[in-house]
Amino acid sequence: MENNTIFVGSKPVMNYVLAVVTQFNEGSDSVVLRARGKAISRAVDAAEIVRNRFVPDSEVTDIQISTEEIENYNHEKTNVSIIEILIEKSA
Amino acid sequence: MENNTIFVGSKPVMNYVLAVVTQFNEGSDSVVLRARGKAISRAVDAAEIVRNRFVPDSEVTDIQISTEEIENYNHEKTNVSIIEILIEKSA
Repeated sequence: MENNTIFVGSKPVMNYVLAVVTQFNEGSDSVVLRARGKAISRAVDAAEIVRNRFVPDSEVTDIQISTEEIENYNHEKTNVSIIEILIEKSA
Repeated sequence: MENNTIFVGSKPVMNYVLAVVTQFNEGSDSVVLRARGKAISRAVDAAEIVRNRFVPDSEVTDIQISTEEIENYNHEKTNVSIIEILIEKSA
C-alpha cells in the first residue's frame, strides 16, 4: 500500500475526492486512502463519493484498520486508529 | 450482518467496547459494529481496542462501507456513509 497513497486529514472531503480522481485520470489502477483518528470518517466519505459519483467503474476492494502509537504535545504516548481503503478500477 | 449488531453512536468508546466484550462472553462467535457519519472513527477505535486489549483471540475479518440517504431536520435528503466491522473469535 506504499504507492498512490492519499493521506486524508482535516481539509474538505472534496479535496481528497479530487486527489483520487486525478490519480485515476493519470493512469493509476489503484489508490489508497489513508486516515487516522477523526479523519477516518472523512476517508470513508471520500471513498464513497468517488465510487458513487465520479469513477463508476471503481470499487473498494480492501479495507484495513490498525493502531499506531503517537506522542502528544505533552510527550505522552497515546494510541490512534488508522484506516486504509483500497480503491481499484475494474479491468 | 443482522444479529449481534452493535450500533455505535456518540457515547464514549468504552461503552461500545464493553458491549462487544459482553456479546462474546455470552457465547457469540461474531459481533458487528455499525456506525455512520462522524461515529465511524469511534467504531474503528472500538474494534481496535477489543482486538488489542480485551479479546486477544478475536480478529477483524470483514469491513464494509456503504452510503445511506437520510432526511435532515429541514426534510432535505442528504447522504451519510456507513461502516460495518465484523469481529470474529478464532475457533
